[in-house]
Amino acid sequence: MTQIKNADNVRLFSLNSNPKLAEQIAQRVGIPLSKASISHFADGEIKITIDESIRGCEVYVIQSVSDPVNTNLMELLIMVDALRRASAAKINVVMPYYGYARQDRKARSREPITAKLIANLLEMDQISRLVTIDLHAPQVQGFFDIPVDHLQATSLFTKYIEEQNLGDDIVVVAPDHAGVNLARKYAERIKASIAIIDNRNDEVRERTEQEVPEYVIGDVKGKTAIIVDDIVDTGVRMNLSAQALKNFGAAKVYGIATHAVLSADAVNTLQNSPLEKMIVTDTIHLPKEKEFPKLVQLSVDDLLKEAIVRIHNNQSIDTLFNRK
Amino acid sequence: MTQIKNADNVRLFSLNSNPKLAEQIAQRVGIPLSKASISHFADGEIKITIDESIRGCEVYVIQSVSDPVNTNLMELLIMVDALRRASAAKINVVMPYYGYARQDRKARSREPITAKLIANLLEMDQISRLVTIDLHAPQVQGFFDIPVDHLQATSLFTKYIEEQNLGDDIVVVAPDHAGVNLARKYAERIKASIAIIDNRNDEVRERTEQEVPEYVIGDVKGKTAIIVDDIVDTGVRMNLSAQALKNFGAAKVYGIATHAVLSADAVNTLQNSPLEKMIVTDTIHLPKEKEFPKLVQLSVDDLLKEAIVRIHNNQSIDTLFNRK
Amino acid sequence: MTQIKNADNVRLFSLNSNPKLAEQIAQRVGIPLSKASISHFADGEIKITIDESIRGCEVYVIQSVSDPVNTNLMELLIMVDALRRASAAKINVVMPYYGYARQDRKARSREPITAKLIANLLEMDQISRLVTIDLHAPQVQGFFDIPVDHLQATSLFTKYIEEQNLGDDIVVVAPDHAGVNLARKYAERIKASIAIIDNRNDEVRERTEQEVPEYVIGDVKGKTAIIVDDIVDTGVRMNLSAQALKNFGAAKVYGIATHAVLSADAVNTLQNSPLEKMIVTDTIHLPKEKEFPKLVQLSVDDLLKEAIVRIHNNQSIDTLFNRK
Amino acid sequence: MTQIKNADNVRLFSLNSNPKLAEQIAQRVGIPLSKASISHFADGEIKITIDESIRGCEVYVIQSVSDPVNTNLMELLIMVDALRRASAAKINVVMPYYGYARQDRKARSREPITAKLIANLLEMDQISRLVTIDLHAPQVQGFFDIPVDHLQATSLFTKYIEEQNLGDDIVVVAPDHAGVNLARKYAERIKASIAIIDNRNDEVRERTEQEVPEYVIGDVKGKTAIIVDDIVDTGVRMNLSAQALKNFGAAKVYGIATHAVLSADAVNTLQNSPLEKMIVTDTIHLPKEKEFPKLVQLSVDDLLKEAIVRIHNNQSIDTLFNRK
Amino acid sequence: MTQIKNADNVRLFSLNSNPKLAEQIAQRVGIPLSKASISHFADGEIKITIDESIRGCEVYVIQSVSDPVNTNLMELLIMVDALRRASAAKINVVMPYYGYARQDRKARSREPITAKLIANLLEMDQISRLVTIDLHAPQVQGFFDIPVDHLQATSLFTKYIEEQNLGDDIVVVAPDHAGVNLARKYAERIKASIAIIDNRNDEVRERTEQEVPEYVIGDVKGKTAIIVDDIVDTGVRMNLSAQALKNFGAAKVYGIATHAVLSADAVNTLQNSPLEKMIVTDTIHLPKEKEFPKLVQLSVDDLLKEAIVRIHNNQSIDTLFNRK
Amino acid sequence: MTQIKNADNVRLFSLNSNPKLAEQIAQRVGIPLSKASISHFADGEIKITIDESIRGCEVYVIQSVSDPVNTNLMELLIMVDALRRASAAKINVVMPYYGYARQDRKARSREPITAKLIANLLEMDQISRLVTIDLHAPQVQGFFDIPVDHLQATSLFTKYIEEQNLGDDIVVVAPDHAGVNLARKYAERIKASIAIIDNRNDEVRERTEQEVPEYVIGDVKGKTAIIVDDIVDTGVRMNLSAQALKNFGAAKVYGIATHAVLSADAVNTLQNSPLEKMIVTDTIHLPKEKEFPKLVQLSVDDLLKEAIVRIHNNQSIDTLFNRK
Repeated sequence: MTQIKNADNVRLFSLNSNPKLAEQIAQRVGIPLSKASISHFADGEIKITIDESIRGCEVYVIQSVSDPVNTNLMELLIMVDALRRASAAKINVVMPYYGYARQDRKARSREPITAKLIANLLEMDQISRLVTIDLHAPQVQGFFDIPVDHLQATSLFTKYIEEQNLGDDIVVVAPDHAGVNLARKYAERIKASIAIIDNRNDEVRERTEQEVPEYVIGDVKGKTAIIVDDIVDTGVRMNLSAQALKNFGAAKVYGIATHAVLSADAVNTLQNSPLEKMIVTDTIHLPKEKEFPKLVQLSVDDLLKEAIVRIHNNQSIDTLFNRK
Repeated sequence: MTQIKNADNVRLFSLNSNPKLAEQIAQRVGIPLSKASISHFADGEIKITIDESIRGCEVYVIQSVSDPVNTNLMELLIMVDALRRASAAKINVVMPYYGYARQDRKARSREPITAKLIANLLEMDQISRLVTIDLHAPQVQGFFDIPVDHLQATSLFTKYIEEQNLGDDIVVVAPDHAGVNLARKYAERIKASIAIIDNRNDEVRERTEQEVPEYVIGDVKGKTAIIVDDIVDTGVRMNLSAQALKNFGAAKVYGIATHAVLSADAVNTLQNSPLEKMIVTDTIHLPKEKEFPKLVQLSVDDLLKEAIVRIHNNQSIDTLFNRK
Repeated sequence: MTQIKNADNVRLFSLNSNPKLAEQIAQRVGIPLSKASISHFADGEIKITIDESIRGCEVYVIQSVSDPVNTNLMELLIMVDALRRASAAKINVVMPYYGYARQDRKARSREPITAKLIANLLEMDQISRLVTIDLHAPQVQGFFDIPVDHLQATSLFTKYIEEQNLGDDIVVVAPDHAGVNLARKYAERIKASIAIIDNRNDEVRERTEQEVPEYVIGDVKGKTAIIVDDIVDTGVRMNLSAQALKNFGAAKVYGIATHAVLSADAVNTLQNSPLEKMIVTDTIHLPKEKEFPKLVQLSVDDLLKEAIVRIHNNQSIDTLFNRK
Repeated sequence: MTQIKNADNVRLFSLNSNPKLAEQIAQRVGIPLSKASISHFADGEIKITIDESIRGCEVYVIQSVSDPVNTNLMELLIMVDALRRASAAKINVVMPYYGYARQDRKARSREPITAKLIANLLEMDQISRLVTIDLHAPQVQGFFDIPVDHLQATSLFTKYIEEQNLGDDIVVVAPDHAGVNLARKYAERIKASIAIIDNRNDEVRERTEQEVPEYVIGDVKGKTAIIVDDIVDTGVRMNLSAQALKNFGAAKVYGIATHAVLSADAVNTLQNSPLEKMIVTDTIHLPKEKEFPKLVQLSVDDLLKEAIVRIHNNQSIDTLFNRK
Repeated sequence: MTQIKNADNVRLFSLNSNPKLAEQIAQRVGIPLSKASISHFADGEIKITIDESIRGCEVYVIQSVSDPVNTNLMELLIMVDALRRASAAKINVVMPYYGYARQDRKARSREPITAKLIANLLEMDQISRLVTIDLHAPQVQGFFDIPVDHLQATSLFTKYIEEQNLGDDIVVVAPDHAGVNLARKYAERIKASIAIIDNRNDEVRERTEQEVPEYVIGDVKGKTAIIVDDIVDTGVRMNLSAQALKNFGAAKVYGIATHAVLSADAVNTLQNSPLEKMIVTDTIHLPKEKEFPKLVQLSVDDLLKEAIVRIHNNQSIDTLFNRK
Repeated sequence: MTQIKNADNVRLFSLNSNPKLAEQIAQRVGIPLSKASISHFADGEIKITIDESIRGCEVYVIQSVSDPVNTNLMELLIMVDALRRASAAKINVVMPYYGYARQDRKARSREPITAKLIANLLEMDQISRLVTIDLHAPQVQGFFDIPVDHLQATSLFTKYIEEQNLGDDIVVVAPDHAGVNLARKYAERIKASIAIIDNRNDEVRERTEQEVPEYVIGDVKGKTAIIVDDIVDTGVRMNLSAQALKNFGAAKVYGIATHAVLSADAVNTLQNSPLEKMIVTDTIHLPKEKEFPKLVQLSVDDLLKEAIVRIHNNQSIDTLFNRK
């Protein structure tokens, strides 16, 4: 295991989105989380005070931009403002889940590109680096001019899959046209073929009233199908894709998604779907009420620990890096 | 009344914080609000599409950064991103209430200056101008390098006071040390003396557990006291100040505050206070459940209408301008 | 046809990459190309002088960043520097082909994101707007903070296809995993199904030594297959995809690509391929020696003319806009 | 006493505004002032050459923006330009007196905010940090995005006051409405009550023709009054406030002000005023001719020495920090 | 004569450096100077208020950065801050004399490049354009990224020379090595040969203790010599050059310099020199005490009037432009 | 010899313009060149991958912007993008030859200032420092705000000249008016007089059809003349100057120029000229076919090695610095 050097000069902070993951990372790095008071006034304004000197330190702030996204984002921006004014040497933002990443282009006239806006806000606030996992589109890295360490959770999932002994006849399935690249990447790792749900609906966001897609491209009959996605949000697309695969003869269906947004009625939708398991990570904190029997949650704590240590030690993180 | 010129080239947009005020402004300007679809996904992300061409137009976006402050702020930033990408000629932000304005300095070590952060976010997003009312500190104007048209609601309040015929023996009261300047300004307008609640607590924010201040500096005995403040938030300070004034012999006490945040238990606190009336404006939208018998709400719609028209016509807004 | 307003205030300039297209656009707009002297010294340095006053004018500079890409890019950057210093009111860059667009993300550690670098160079040079066609990834729009008018050539191609009367049994084919979105878009327009060449090689760039892909996902047997791509570069992928489709039983194969880079031995590769026709546009100038019997070239002149006129007139270009 | 670490890597420079203070600071830090040639040509242009290598060094430049303010400011900006081009690692500006700080907001239409302009000039010149003392308004910190270490001289004054044994019946007096916060802060430290001169003139700058204020709010009869201000400029306000306090029955009156601008006829005005003592610091250099019997000058040398050493050592300066 | 269009939308302001020239320009343009109150406090701080609305106007501010250079520069920067915050549409700075222009490079290690610093200050302050005359080095234009209209006074001087009928045997003389380009330009215009004072001292600034140069390169014997320079500062170099020319046999010597700094003892030095006439312009205001019998002052008022009018009318100023 | 400290933390990279010089520098520094894959696709796009971790390293990239200038410049900009994204601590660009340096001002209306554009491109790309040699105009340093270490090759040439024992009767000749400063500098070092070719043509660039200048200012008869220039491009000016000197009676003529562009027919022009020797450096790589008998090439490898080592060690490079 890689050990952190000059630990005296490092400070880890957790904000409110995912304190459990932050705590696990800190334990693995071997440094306690530094103290900051983060409170919310009755009118919703956020108040932050950093409770120990961070003058000249390399700071890592851990925060996912998950629900409540706008509040979590503002917490982060305000914390960075405080850190900069308090003379931090470097401010590294560790953002396991990059909210608004799906709004990465103008799909229609007169739309914003909110994923770029987020990047602009962070760069304006003078962060030194972003560490993140499985961006919705790899082009989002280019929304930044600072270094972005883009990690991938693929190996966590493939390791889990291999441990399940699902047999040889596996097909990796992209739940929409944009997901074929990801499916191809998984397929290569676990030596499988691919298929695509041709749902003829190029919306990034799922509509709740969506019907079961009538077309599946590629052969799934009798196979164990693994649907792979970066985000599982309302669970509708995952559920309908699983149904379509069943309709086309798939033997068993598993779902994989790095970021478990699980909004709206996702818990029921997924639990009642034809999926055997819905496998996710803890980039987004899941409260008790969002756990359900079919859910498997893998932790990115070790991945992020390793990234932080290597970044601080100026060691290559090549092996952790997103190669696609 | 001043008429807007080249109205074809103007677009007014309302976001979600205060649509009623926006509607009233639009009616007075004589231009309908333009259409934009602003929705919130189940996971809290905001989605905006502008529904009509604004190419080459002078756009005015009306949004207060009131509760939910972070969401309302992000709505604004995302809207500006969309407007800029859609080729608006100029993006004027009309922000009747500037949230986070009280966090305008480092009161302690390692604090952020969030009011400046807001300014940075807006300038980074390339807005052309800010129109706002009664900033907590006039120095916040200097947080911007773009033009800020800083309006004041003073005359709305002094006109109302004069209409009440409260007699000649009026004292204007600053509820804390920072408010003396504002009290002095009101006192000059209505030819009154001033007094100060010396609550020996220089916190900007009110603590709920606060006790009735033991000191009032200046003569209030037998007088009609008018407490003036820019913001009434939890109502605690206003209530305790009123009690202190009563303790020191004031005959009647009125409260004035431009921005009616009314968070926590403010409605009961104020209704049950010794105040005769709590007079505010509609810079912040007040839902039905926040109305109470002692509350008087004056509208800034005409003030903002006049500002927008004169700005667009390149006429001086000197008379509307904060002379403080 | 939309007519340009205030034509006196408009200037169109062509640089050296595609003067023929620029000339056609100018004719359709109804304004002659303005004069600039653009020469190259013996040591390769570019020298530009603008030969007429452009003070206060809205300027449109037409330049593709095609081979020689670096020289064409520098011509553009130098021209913009000259225009800005000569007091142009607005500098609109019309870039039919956005070079380096395929380097839009870090595919491996320690790579540049050159498509973002290009965006940074243009924004630093203070251009007002970019007009471009069929970007390799729509996220490249987000590399800019200025307005980008992203046009699409889809309708040019679908109109051509419909005129060929290819029958009802058409399948649109994505030549790699990243292209499924584009294929889906075409399929919707011409009411066809889709298929994917599963070449198990996620490189953006084609390798010359590539073998015929062994897998085609989706049904192509007996159908007229139309391979759609944004760029046809060496022609290798197009050729091998066509062969694979033939191997899988496709009746006839057509190729469509907006940008005809046609580098290396593309002319022979494509002419000798199983393709019936290779249909492209003139976003990149094709010299005589790059023409070949199977090549069909459609012009984007009218598309760009219409965009320029509407932009100048502050009319919506919604119908010309890339909706994906 | 805190010792500086890695002294080899530190350079202290004094410019022309306050070389005596700079010399004292250097002695206390234990490092000689580095050499730079700063001359003024006959036409008023400033010429600077740094006479020793500062490559890779942490540099501290000590300069107050006091009379001649514009020349002292330009000396600073030019020095920073030279230091940056000569490869200083960090440029820390130690500005005991921040000139133009009173122009921190638009008091009227069409005024500049010169205190912000100064901040912009310094940030544009790429300084790394500002160390300053008792800013006119704490919001000026927010004019910067770089770290500002805002020290306060309060304890210097309270220590002096305590040493004078002025008895228990002390009242701290704010000479105008804006000064109540400062008065409150002093009152808390020395356990005194407060009063306010209600001069009904909200100008920041003193007018020479001003009359003795007719109103004092709060009880001063028979008490030892201490007028506190951040700046004593022409001395007119201090003098008239003292007279008013005498008129209202104060036993003795002392004046305190951090920054001794002492412009116009301040020396006579103050010496001939009812003040017992006028207590100031040496943030601004006082030439012999500005000394007068009632003047007491305390030095900020130790305060600034301690700040520089702790900043360089990455130690907290919390205890030196402005807690206001 | 060119007439200004849309005069209602134009505002001319004069600051304190050269009000006479500004008045003359205004008269020729046919628009009165707009009103601004510019005062200096007793402590040297500048206070500016603009006395009429300039909302949406094209503003021209006329100010030379001449002695007192730092104060005149700050007046300009503060005025621009006020204009920008008061919503000027465009801020054009007309700077007849660009102070600090001679500090345009690092002549030694660890020197500033103050001419660039000035450019940075102006661009940071967001001016739209600089209009200036005869820059010390034409490269200073490149210190800016905004448009610089660089006018030249050459024709004023050559017209004057021609009117003096100085005969055919004229030699234009560069007073140092850097001035040969300028000499060549004059020589071409008046069909003369050139010579160079080889003073073997490459300092930009004149040293007062300098001796008469021993070398003149080129033939001056019996000729009428015209020394040409951009700036005449202390007059030492001009005087010594004239003496050297006399020593080498020149019949008569005239001096030409655009900018009459005339610092130190320049008046006596030049009056007592062998020069017949010292011909300058009024880019710098000359008070009565700086006039002397040999001095001839030509006005740039018409040159600047023509520039302002053409810039405002969007007409080419090519003929006024520096072709050097 | 100066030794580099902390060599582990240094990385030297060579791009494609001058690998031989880079290799020599690396050997002298005592560190191997780091590995990067730099390839050019068939369509001219550049592809760079850095092959070893440079996280936290001080990087020096060696690249001349010589023919092909645009490609070499883009290689550099792309490499810097990659280095920045790969977390280099500092990116020092070593540019022995700064291309486009002659386009350093607007010589005519509506021209670019390309030398400034290059500076802007590099600063936008966030390089930390530029190391370069003998800039065409020293003002180009001011085009940057980052540190520029401007070295000079003068001593290389004067050492060579002294070794040739050319006798006492030497005259240094400026080939045009702009070159007199350089000539004066050489003349001082080797105790010689100067002369100027008065070619009455103020173009920076040589025209091939130029005639032998008819005027030489200064005495060259019977002397050994050394023409000095910063760049020898087509060789035309050097050749014609040599002919003019011969016509005016010079005994022998030598040519010196730091940067050997040698474009067009320079090799023949110079070999067939009256020059005895054409002495240059290797700032620009000279392929075999550009060598010719009269050419003498001196290496700047030691100069650059010394600069890199001292910069890295934070030692003064004063003695290497351009003192002009």
